Order: sequence, then structure tokens, then C-alpha cells
Amino acid sequence: MNILVIGTGAIGSFYGALLAKAGHSVAVAARSDYETVKANGIHVRSETLGDYSFRPAAVVRSGAELEARPDCVLVCIKVVEGADRVGLLRGAVGPGTSIVLISNGIGIEPEIAAAFPDNELISGLAFIGVTRTAPGEIWHQAYGRLMLGNYPGGASERVKALAASFEQAGVNGIATENITTARWQKCVWNAAFNPLSVLSGGLDTLEILSTQEALVRAIMQEIRTVAAATGHPLPEDIVEKNIASTYKMPPYKTSMLVDFEASQPMETEAILGNAVRAGQRAGVAIPHLESVYALMKLRELQASKSR
Amino acid sequence: MNILVIGTGAIGSFYGALLAKAGHSVAVAARSDYETVKANGIHVRSETLGDYSFRPAAVVRSGAELEARPDCVLVCIKVVEGADRVGLLRGAVGPGTSIVLISNGIGIEPEIAAAFPDNELISGLAFIGVTRTAPGEIWHQAYGRLMLGNYPGGASERVKALAASFEQAGVNGIATENITTARWQKCVWNAAFNPLSVLSGGLDTLEILSTQEALVRAIMQEIRTVAAATGHPLPEDIVEKNIASTYKMPPYKTSMLVDFEASQPMETEAILGNAVRAGQRAGVAIPHLESVYALMKLRELQASKSR
Repeated sequence: MNILVIGTGAIGSFYGALLAKAGHSVAVAARSDYETVKANGIHVRSETLGDYSFRPAAVVRSGAELEARPDCVLVCIKVVEGADRVGLLRGAVGPGTSIVLISNGIGIEPEIAAAFPDNELISGLAFIGVTRTAPGEIWHQAYGRLMLGNYPGGASERVKALAASFEQAGVNGIATENITTARWQKCVWNAAFNPLSVLSGGLDTLEILSTQEALVRAIMQEIRTVAAATGHPLPEDIVEKNIASTYKMPPYKTSMLVDFEASQPMETEAILGNAVRAGQRAGVAIPHLESVYALMKLRELQASKSR
Repeated sequence: MNILVIGTGAIGSFYGALLAKAGHSVAVAARSDYETVKANGIHVRSETLGDYSFRPAAVVRSGAELEARPDCVLVCIKVVEGADRVGLLRGAVGPGTSIVLISNGIGIEPEIAAAFPDNELISGLAFIGVTRTAPGEIWHQAYGRLMLGNYPGGASERVKALAASFEQAGVNGIATENITTARWQKCVWNAAFNPLSVLSGGLDTLEILSTQEALVRAIMQEIRTVAAATGHPLPEDIVEKNIASTYKMPPYKTSMLVDFEASQPMETEAILGNAVRAGQRAGVAIPHLESVYALMKLRELQASKSR
């Protein structure tokens, strides 16, 4: 397939490199890394897959520069304030192009579905430890699983073909019929640890969990309640399993904390705000989520003042 | 009366000076300010009462140094981790000494009542804008009202005499039969704005209120619920009145935020922790209070690491 990857951060570079390795023709759209990636391509140093370098079929500033519309566009940018995903897709997308959104959070698809109602929309969730260490330089530390499914549900042939390509390239590629449920499932962990790491001023997962487990559990439980109320019941033991696995993980600094410390915009709305609004629309009680979300908005307001 | 004031911070210095002005013999126990206060006394610059200087009848490091046990000991130190109020009172208190606790918070009396069961215990709440600008130098910006009452209830002759002395010296001195109810009343504002100012990273009262009024209201309402459940029903319109008056106040930096920014211990337990535990004992739902309290404990943990 002809594939365009929008975004040359850690996620876009890594999964773009895998698709190239699987034999696809992969172009990339870059912003700040444009010159470096155009000159040198992308280099992935992987702890589990060996090192891999690739030269994109094209490096563009905007998808509109490509001669032909791609079969798939992977949107690999964080859903944060100021990220204009529709603008970045406009011009890149043709009638037969599938749009693949790979990012964290809940409810990140409706805006794209509304802007491109005639295109296939695929939603993806990455479970991976990967960092962009310099323009065009990616360090893949651990994991790599990618879940893909059509939004709001289903798994098309193209979804299955993409999952198979990732599998072929060395990571776990999963085609799921219920990507929205999978998003809620991942949100259970994210909605607890990401904001708490920022609001605490910089604690890691183990420091948070070992001192305020009750708050972590309450947030996780409320995500489960909202998910169920919106038609996505999660397993009864999901909170217990998340707690147990986090105790076993090495102490971990969340991605939201990394963004916060780098004075970058945070995925507050994608991870927390959309979940809160879903809960409010469903009329379920989510006082812990609402408290933490309100505090994150205060923290963002303060951060915006000191910028 | 012979009076000992423990603590030469803003509160102790200001109210000690007023009692001297009203004709009492006032000694002070100082720690870090001992040398300066011993040499120069205490100077109050007041925006509303004129300037006033006084030389304490004695300046001591510990109340035990005094020749005679005082009629009253005013304890004017914040109730924070590491503040050993019982230790400071030990040696200062004689059989007829009344203990007067002037500080913020809920449930700050039982520890002292248990340690000195045979002494009269008076509990006091200050409504004042006053700052210690240097050792022995106090700047009184606004207000000054002091509410006094016996713990857990009642208003003895000594309470009334103290209130009258403060009134005579120029501030509003109020003897109340229900100081515990008054504490809950003040806690409505404190439990909301103090932690939110810290957790936001430094916002003032107006920034907090104008963007996250719902969270402020939820916290205030839960304090009202706990107060009622512990036998101290507060007026129905107390939340509304606190919101309205805060909108009218000039934007204000809370005392907890001042302590936090100065890397000083915060009144988290006195203002929030004791309220949360009272609510938990009473079995009422206080999810917003519990969330904010847990987050303050995380913030304190992080602060203790960077000290």
C-alpha cells in the first residue's frame, strides 16, 4: 500500500518504519523535523527488534504535496490543544483513503469522522515504550502492541491487512471489532496515573500507588462506570488487574508528566475531559474524575500564565 | 492578667500587642526571632489601628523560664507536621492557666485537651490579614476579628474578658458559645481555596473561582455536610455567600500557597485531613474532599523529596 504517516514523533516514526519494513511504500509529513528527516531518513534503535533505518518514499511538509492520494494516512500526533488534525488531513486524503488515528484517549474520532464522512476511519491504540531522542532518531525501549479497529466498531479487510503488516514487522498487531471498548480499557490506567503524576508535582507510578491507592482505585472505578454507561462494559476485575500490574512495573514517569515538564500541551481533554463529559451526558456520578479534571484545568491555566 | 504568647509570627505578635495595649502583662516565647524580639520588642505597622510597639514583660525561649505560671497562654503557631504544641505548653502551664489556641482548622483541640485535662481550654479563630515582614516586625493589612469560645462549647468569664480586651484594643473580639461550629464555618472557605491554590501551582482566589466554580462549590457543600453530620449544621446559604464574597474580594493568595512557595509545612491536616476523617467517621459521602486531600498528600510527598 501507499501510506502517509503524519507526524515524525516517536509513534509515527516507529510504526512508519515497521510498515516500510513490511514492504509498504511509506511517505512522511514532518514539521520541525522536516530538514533532518529529508536529509537522513529515520533511524530506530530498538531493544527488542534490532536497529532499523529507513528512507521514506517521500518527505513532505503537507500531505497535499504528494503526487497521488495514499491508501492510508496514519495520524500520529497527540490530541492536544492546538493540534489541527483536520487541517493536516485536508489535501492528503482522497476518496479511497483510509484514515488511521493512533493516539491516546477517549472520543478522539468524532471530529475526524465528521470532517471526512466518506472515508474509512480506523482507530488505533499503541502499547509501547518509545522515545524520540532527536529529529529522526527513535529509541524503542519496550513493548509495541498496536490494536486497530474501525470506528465506532468493526474490523475491515484493511484493518486486518495493517495488523498483519505490523505483526510481520515484529510487533503484536491486533485487529479488534471493538476499538472503542479497548480505548476505555486503556483509559482506566491513563485517567488515574497521568493526571496524578502532574498534580503531585512529579511523582512516579509507584509513589502515587503506594501512598494514595484509594484515589487511584476510585478514578479507575469511575472510568469503568462511564464505560459501562456508554455501552462498553469492562471486565469486573479490570481495576484489580491494573493495580496489581502497576505494583509490578518498574516505577514509571507518565507521558503527561513528561509533556508537563517539557512545557508541552498535555492530553488532558483526550484522556480526562472527554471521559468526564461522557459520564456527565450519561448521568452517572463521577466526583473523583470531575475533581481531578477541574484541578488539571487549573494546573493548565497556571502553566499557560508562566509560558 | 499575666499572659504568655507562644509564637512570635504574625498572629502571636499582633494579638499579643493588642493584649499589652489593653493593659495586660504580656510575655512572649520565641524561637528563631528570640534575639531580635528580646533586643527590640515587637513593632506593629497597622493600616487601620495606627502603629504600635511594645516590649514584652519577658522574652523567653520556653514558657518554663517564667517565674510564675501565667493566667493565660496563647498558642499562636500553625498546626502542622513537626509543631509540638504539647511540648511547648509543658512547663508553661500551671493549675489555673487557661490555654488559648489561635489557629486555623478543624479538630485542633482534642490533642491539647487530652494533654492538659484540668486546664480551661479556649479555642480561637482569627479573621485577619497580617504578615510578619521581619523578626519582630508585623504588617497588619486588614480585618482583625477574633472569635473565642471554650472547647467544645460555652463561653466562660475568661473568654468574655479576653474578647473585651481585644475589643478595647481596637479589633472585633467575639465570645461565642459555639466555637466548633464557627470553625466549620470558616473551614468552608479554607478547605476549598487553600488546597486548590497549591494544587493549581499558584493561582489566586479569583482565577480559581472564575474557572472552576463547580469544584469550589462541591468542596464547600461537602464541608457543610460533614459539619451537619457532626452536630454543627451551617446556614443553608453559606456556600452561596462564600462564593459571592470571594468574587467581591480582591484576588487573594491563600496562606497555604504562601507556605508552599516558602517550602514551609502546610496546614493540610488541620484544614483538610481532620475534616475528611470526621466525614469518614460520620459515614457521609465526601468524594471531592477525599480527592483533594489525597492530591495534597501526594503534593506534600513530592515537596518533601525536593527539600
